[in-house]
Amino acid sequence: MPLGERAGDKSESRYCGVETEFHDDMPQLLAHNVSSGGFDFVVSPLMDPSYRPSLMDRDHGGSGVLPFAGSDLVLSPSHWSSHVVGKISSWIDLDSEDEILRMDSEITLKQEISWASHLSLQACLLPAPKGTSCANYARCVNQILLGLNSMQLWLRIPLLKTDDDSMDVNPTNLVDSWELWNSFRMLCEHHNQLSIALDVFSIPSANSLGRWFGESVRAAIIDTDSFLTNSRGYPCLSKPHQKLITGFFNHSIQIVVSGKPVHSLPKGSRDLAANHNDSNFDGVQGHPLRPYLDYIGYLYQRMDPLPEQERFELGYRDFLQSPLQPLMDNLEAQTYETFEKDAVKYIQYQRAICKALQDRVPEERLSMTSTVLMVVGAGRGPLVRASLQAAEETGRKLKIYAVEKNPNAVVTLHSLVKLEGWENIVTIVSSDMRCWDAPEKADILVSELLGSFGDNELSPECLDGAQRFLKDDGISIPSSYTSFIQPVTASKLYNDVKSHKDLVHFETAYVVKLHNVARLAASQPVFTFTHPNRSTKRSNQRYKKLQFEIPSDTGSAMLHGFAGYFDATLYKDVHLGIEPSTATPNMFSWFAIFFPLRTPVIVHPGSALEVHFWRCCGPTKVWYEWCVTSPCRSPIHNSNGRSHWVGL
Amino acid sequence: MPLGERAGDKSESRYCGVETEFHDDMPQLLAHNVSSGGFDFVVSPLMDPSYRPSLMDRDHGGSGVLPFAGSDLVLSPSHWSSHVVGKISSWIDLDSEDEILRMDSEITLKQEISWASHLSLQACLLPAPKGTSCANYARCVNQILLGLNSMQLWLRIPLLKTDDDSMDVNPTNLVDSWELWNSFRMLCEHHNQLSIALDVFSIPSANSLGRWFGESVRAAIIDTDSFLTNSRGYPCLSKPHQKLITGFFNHSIQIVVSGKPVHSLPKGSRDLAANHNDSNFDGVQGHPLRPYLDYIGYLYQRMDPLPEQERFELGYRDFLQSPLQPLMDNLEAQTYETFEKDAVKYIQYQRAICKALQDRVPEERLSMTSTVLMVVGAGRGPLVRASLQAAEETGRKLKIYAVEKNPNAVVTLHSLVKLEGWENIVTIVSSDMRCWDAPEKADILVSELLGSFGDNELSPECLDGAQRFLKDDGISIPSSYTSFIQPVTASKLYNDVKSHKDLVHFETAYVVKLHNVARLAASQPVFTFTHPNRSTKRSNQRYKKLQFEIPSDTGSAMLHGFAGYFDATLYKDVHLGIEPSTATPNMFSWFAIFFPLRTPVIVHPGSALEVHFWRCCGPTKVWYEWCVTSPCRSPIHNSNGRSHWVGL
Repeated sequence: MPLGERAGDKSESRYCGVETEFHDDMPQLLAHNVSSGGFDFVVSPLMDPSYRPSLMDRDHGGSGVLPFAGSDLVLSPSHWSSHVVGKISSWIDLDSEDEILRMDSEITLKQEISWASHLSLQACLLPAPKGTSCANYARCVNQILLGLNSMQLWLRIPLLKTDDDSMDVNPTNLVDSWELWNSFRMLCEHHNQLSIALDVFSIPSANSLGRWFGESVRAAIIDTDSFLTNSRGYPCLSKPHQKLITGFFNHSIQIVVSGKPVHSLPKGSRDLAANHNDSNFDGVQGHPLRPYLDYIGYLYQRMDPLPEQERFELGYRDFLQSPLQPLMDNLEAQTYETFEKDAVKYIQYQRAICKALQDRVPEERLSMTSTVLMVVGAGRGPLVRASLQAAEETGRKLKIYAVEKNPNAVVTLHSLVKLEGWENIVTIVSSDMRCWDAPEKADILVSELLGSFGDNELSPECLDGAQRFLKDDGISIPSSYTSFIQPVTASKLYNDVKSHKDLVHFETAYVVKLHNVARLAASQPVFTFTHPNRSTKRSNQRYKKLQFEIPSDTGSAMLHGFAGYFDATLYKDVHLGIEPSTATPNMFSWFAIFFPLRTPVIVHPGSALEVHFWRCCGPTKVWYEWCVTSPCRSPIHNSNGRSHWVGL
Repeated sequence: MPLGERAGDKSESRYCGVETEFHDDMPQLLAHNVSSGGFDFVVSPLMDPSYRPSLMDRDHGGSGVLPFAGSDLVLSPSHWSSHVVGKISSWIDLDSEDEILRMDSEITLKQEISWASHLSLQACLLPAPKGTSCANYARCVNQILLGLNSMQLWLRIPLLKTDDDSMDVNPTNLVDSWELWNSFRMLCEHHNQLSIALDVFSIPSANSLGRWFGESVRAAIIDTDSFLTNSRGYPCLSKPHQKLITGFFNHSIQIVVSGKPVHSLPKGSRDLAANHNDSNFDGVQGHPLRPYLDYIGYLYQRMDPLPEQERFELGYRDFLQSPLQPLMDNLEAQTYETFEKDAVKYIQYQRAICKALQDRVPEERLSMTSTVLMVVGAGRGPLVRASLQAAEETGRKLKIYAVEKNPNAVVTLHSLVKLEGWENIVTIVSSDMRCWDAPEKADILVSELLGSFGDNELSPECLDGAQRFLKDDGISIPSSYTSFIQPVTASKLYNDVKSHKDLVHFETAYVVKLHNVARLAASQPVFTFTHPNRSTKRSNQRYKKLQFEIPSDTGSAMLHGFAGYFDATLYKDVHLGIEPSTATPNMFSWFAIFFPLRTPVIVHPGSALEVHFWRCCGPTKVWYEWCVTSPCRSPIHNSNGRSHWVGL
């Protein structure tokens, strides 16, 4: 049964498993651990650990029946698949110097996986590679993966605090287990059915741990040894461990309890929930690991419910969307509807417009001056409303032109103006701002043309076209905006891009609600645009070379691409943006953008990551190109905008 | 006019060019340098070097006609394309800190290339990158390459002796120009129209120079400063330079002479060929660089003519062929014909059979003993003949079974036996050796089932099947064989594989006459098979981990894949093979094999190259898998034999 209910959370992390020894009676094993023990699933060996193929041969013995834990008939197919994760014999060692052991290991591994997939298990747990070399193990697993049904293979990887984490300068031989995982998955070509079960030995630094949240971690194995004892004799976890477990919950990682009970509880005690508030404990003298499960359940239930916005965005997590093409395509009503609901954004606009109006018209000239404000790209009118509210708030008189190229939105605009009685103030213009012949010049130009990466929906080109009808001393809101990028590990996104098996998807920037990603360094500014732009030789082409440094305690990490953000100055100190360190809170109009890399790049601590971004402009389109030149060289992505571009 | 005639040589290196200054009268330039000067082509600027787009703009001046060297009408299209290589303005600097210079450079580069391709020039020479950073230059060139006709772009790269070459341990700032080239071409994704013009400044070590012969070098530019003066006042080159030039000739690299004449020749001298044997000099007081051209021509003509075998193999150089599938397919008459001509191979077999017969039958028992010899895979009979000749040579009595599965070859065998009158000695068996029910056991089993990689045509499986009818103390010829691999730079092969745009071709081993490759380290043994194989648990699966070390004076190099060879012990000290260090001379039955890598790997000196090869066996096929695990991890290639396998 799940650990509990957490409002909004539908992730796998509600389920908790237990690692067991081999038992030849699987129904009894499940009865003990699941039905009465309270765990959701067992991680159990499928084959008698004493079995060795080479010994079998020599004896010519037996009936040819392999020593599996029960036939497929002892449980219903759905019981097998929902409650059993197969644990592959841990003695296997495919990279041993001993050829017989290698051969035995390969045969056994293939037999057990074949049996597990016959049972339609959801996953098997593969033992951790024994040494630092794992090529033969990976070769064998890769062969299996290519012929596998939908079963996942969880590679057991120790989670360790390495010397790097402690910033110690003395080099030691302690290997970073991430490197082991990385070798293995690269040899298996990032196969999406190969994932990780972290075996928690110790807790690395936040940066080192953070890497894993961009990888495909499915389970975390906590040994009973990791638990402390509270004042009443019950198991509990240290604060760092609690934080670790909560981190796992937040990244949809299932907990598996492992090991022997190491706490002797007060006899007959019914008060297992002694120092935590809630427990489903039923009083039966049951499973010896039940107190550990209860504690994990307590941690789960103790978490805050998901905030409203997070719940709304849950379905978008790590889901790639193509960015809008607002110039070439007309937005649909549904899209306008969604974006208009973003109250925070329009409050910021209103604040900016207020300040601009106050600067433009001093108090003493309030009554005689009327300000000409043009909303360019008015859509269905939210900025018209914000402007009028700003006028009311500041007592300034306004004359508004609402310019909109989408004739469908213009229909709505007309109704709105009529409904609100704004006919004397607002003039609706059904035209593209780049070719409209304005009857007078504007004091203030207000627009909301920004994409997740700032200029990526061609705000610069549109506003360059519109500034013809802005007075020489006129104000543009926004007055400037800057894009940002940040290197990320994002194996889920990488695999989704890769699944299309073409170049185009690897050279496309996506809008995405980033969740299971590791942010490897602080973001850095890329391109800035300022409006109005009065320079005579203006070009919206840009080129930026960036250098990132990965914190040394992170260890090596995999770079799958770049998260992109923007920050805009609407007017003076009023800004709006999604760059993580300065993001406007509670705004939902923009997810981040994601620029993938065709080949993921391993970044080692201490070696610089050098990245180049270009904004290129042609007669009919604008596009980005990007590449990495250090620590290695990628090809130039999206050359000539061959894969992805925004039409003018 | 070409440098001269060299028997068998049809390569581009017969042509010699000259680098010139800008001249606005192209016909006159050609008349001077080609018609009367004797060069085959000029490398000349196409545009006035004083042109700057940004200055043009500011002046609003001119008619809008760009200052190109003459219109396309001043020469016929074929003159333009056969005699002019466009030299792109050398002032361009796309990675300058100065944005105006960057912009001017991009505009100019695109204008000049556009003009050159309008003229259908065969190539343009791009100036060397100015600094160590070349990302923006590469981005721009990459954009051009993607839209280019068949024109080649030669990137000028200085050939320098670096400190690494001199084995100096002091690190210096002198950059290895190979790194520059490598950055550039990786950013341009190994585009096959991007190649190299080496600008010879100094001569690096043999290993360092060797790298370039695996790269796409089209031209080598020799400055007149590089020439010495001989005792008669004429230009000549040092021995190392002579060797360098000969190396270029051997790798189809054209020479371009550059610079001002620095030798003042004896006035009116007609004896330009003073210390070289041959010259086409016509006595006209012509081109000031003519003595340099003559000297280059002298070096060309002085080379040995291509040997017969090289001439025969010329058309196969660096041409990828699929290996034979001799078990699944029956060879054709043409194929038998070709292989039977390899006299050296059968002489080695005959020597081995002689020794085996002598060991088998002592002199004193000569008359009473008849040896049973079975040729398994007899084809059209060359080994039958070699066996009979060995019997005659040693005076041993033979009884031969000639086993052949190809019924077409059996027809020829029957005719041969009849024609030669061997009916009493030779029994022809039309059967697959793996299932033939032999009437008696053999003393000697002779086979020629080896492929370029030894076991790759399934000799092990065939001989395992045949050894049933070999006496316990019987002899197999060959008695063992070993495969070898060697890391190579082979950009031509890589691009040919890549051109198929699929995975299959990157996971196939090819038979190929290696020519323009750089062998980065000595070859190492991979798999060995010994026959007969009497072990009870025999398996023909193999796994080998290899470590190569690139000589430190090589510098970094690109690994495109592995050359594969074999060496076989026929009997005792009689061997046969193509492994370079021990190859049997004048044998033409086998080219090397080439295992490509899906992504080329940069190997740095000092860091180990670790490679894994597997020979995998399934019920119906045998295949290889391979991967690199150091300095980086490749995916496992050809998992499950998905792309390439040999059918049983």
